[in-house]
Amino acid sequence: MILVNGVETDSVQATDRGLAYGDGVFRTLRIQAGKVRCWARQFSKLEADCAVLHIPCPPRSVLSQAVISAADAEPDCIAKLIVTRGNSMRGYAPPLSPTVTWVMLTAPVPPTLQRRRKDGVKLRLCETRLGLQPRLAGVKHLNRLENVLARKEWTCQETAEGLMLDAEGYLIAGTMSNLFLVRGNRLYTPDLSRCGVAGVQRARVLDCAQALGITVNIGQLRLPDLLAAEEVFLTNSVIELWPVQEFEGKHWPSGSLAVTIGEWLQEHDD
Amino acid sequence: MILVNGVETDSVQATDRGLAYGDGVFRTLRIQAGKVRCWARQFSKLEADCAVLHIPCPPRSVLSQAVISAADAEPDCIAKLIVTRGNSMRGYAPPLSPTVTWVMLTAPVPPTLQRRRKDGVKLRLCETRLGLQPRLAGVKHLNRLENVLARKEWTCQETAEGLMLDAEGYLIAGTMSNLFLVRGNRLYTPDLSRCGVAGVQRARVLDCAQALGITVNIGQLRLPDLLAAEEVFLTNSVIELWPVQEFEGKHWPSGSLAVTIGEWLQEHDD
Repeated sequence: MILVNGVETDSVQATDRGLAYGDGVFRTLRIQAGKVRCWARQFSKLEADCAVLHIPCPPRSVLSQAVISAADAEPDCIAKLIVTRGNSMRGYAPPLSPTVTWVMLTAPVPPTLQRRRKDGVKLRLCETRLGLQPRLAGVKHLNRLENVLARKEWTCQETAEGLMLDAEGYLIAGTMSNLFLVRGNRLYTPDLSRCGVAGVQRARVLDCAQALGITVNIGQLRLPDLLAAEEVFLTNSVIELWPVQEFEGKHWPSGSLAVTIGEWLQEHDD
Repeated sequence: MILVNGVETDSVQATDRGLAYGDGVFRTLRIQAGKVRCWARQFSKLEADCAVLHIPCPPRSVLSQAVISAADAEPDCIAKLIVTRGNSMRGYAPPLSPTVTWVMLTAPVPPTLQRRRKDGVKLRLCETRLGLQPRLAGVKHLNRLENVLARKEWTCQETAEGLMLDAEGYLIAGTMSNLFLVRGNRLYTPDLSRCGVAGVQRARVLDCAQALGITVNIGQLRLPDLLAAEEVFLTNSVIELWPVQEFEGKHWPSGSLAVTIGEWLQEHDD
């Protein structure tokens, strides 16, 4: 199912600024048993990301209606919601009062999700680094060439995800997921104030940690921190939580904190 | 006129990776008296930029045909040529054998061009900085949010262009143009190995300088270098060459080297 501004169609205007400049933001939603997971939080993040780019976010009621139609039509799927600054004349200057475009696309749930949640995944190190851009850091915008180039570095299906470092060698995230390390019953996750996407699922893990009384350190982490971790896991709204089983030759047995947090994420919906 | 893969239409697939991730490149062409300016060089740059992203470039014969139709229909216009990695399933992983999308859009020539070439322009300093990303530097790709945010910093029509610095404060370029400084009969232009777009017109200025025996220094430049310059000018394929008349309170009289180079660019077509 594809909706563009509420209309079922498979196309967008060729003059859309989303295509021209990546001038927009997006969200990836999990629809399960006919319901959108964590919709309130997803919408808030969409709204916040739009605000960073000064793009007017479509009203919540409009987008809620769209995700409800998607969930009615496909009760178990992935939905992607894109909001762009809409059409404009040629040139970078954004229109003063843009008429935004929103696109909702559904896709099947990857068949490997469950197994990977249970068995853990193989992670590799990407050569493509994330450039530092504090102005856009944390935002899930449409300028994602770095992620594409990083994901292009491997084709082997056994490797589930690639780890990206920033230009200075700090750990940032997977190509499509956020990263957590466990050591001494503490959680460690990279600071994302200079690059990376601060995902909804990452925020949920931070809330979970608070609820369970687990201390979290958000800061600058390097490869030795990862290699010294007792547990490593990845999160996003589709995978929820994947424990890392292997990274560049180093192996981890399944860890208890990943299991606890994974269960918490599944049981809660906010 | 809008052509998508050779077909007259005003839309592209909503699943195009150009929209999803900015996964593509583009060129802006000047069509004048029914001919495309510097087409050989424009195509070579498109091909080179595609190669950096591992996107197969459409054949020159196909794109030549498209720009010829545009020039026949609108003998005096701006044409924009976009090439994306085409459609794919959800996710960053690019298809192994992508079927690329190309889009050609025409637009009117801005009415201010000639006057600004003659009288010079007002340049302002942008707050938005360019992040350093050597992997994508020089390439005119579709991830242009930094340029959009920089261009959004002013609406006053009197200001023609904004100057962008990189994260470390080095001069890089205008939001849509390359930058040149003149001092002691030498040309200075920023090194673009860490960010920025190495435009076709910039390459032509370098060729012009060689033809005229003018020494060019490509390197790291800062604001004091700009303020100490005897002439400052901006280039791109639409504006060709705009002398900078004013930058943040500092004024320049019209300079002779900008005139000489501007005439050379107009007289030559390679």
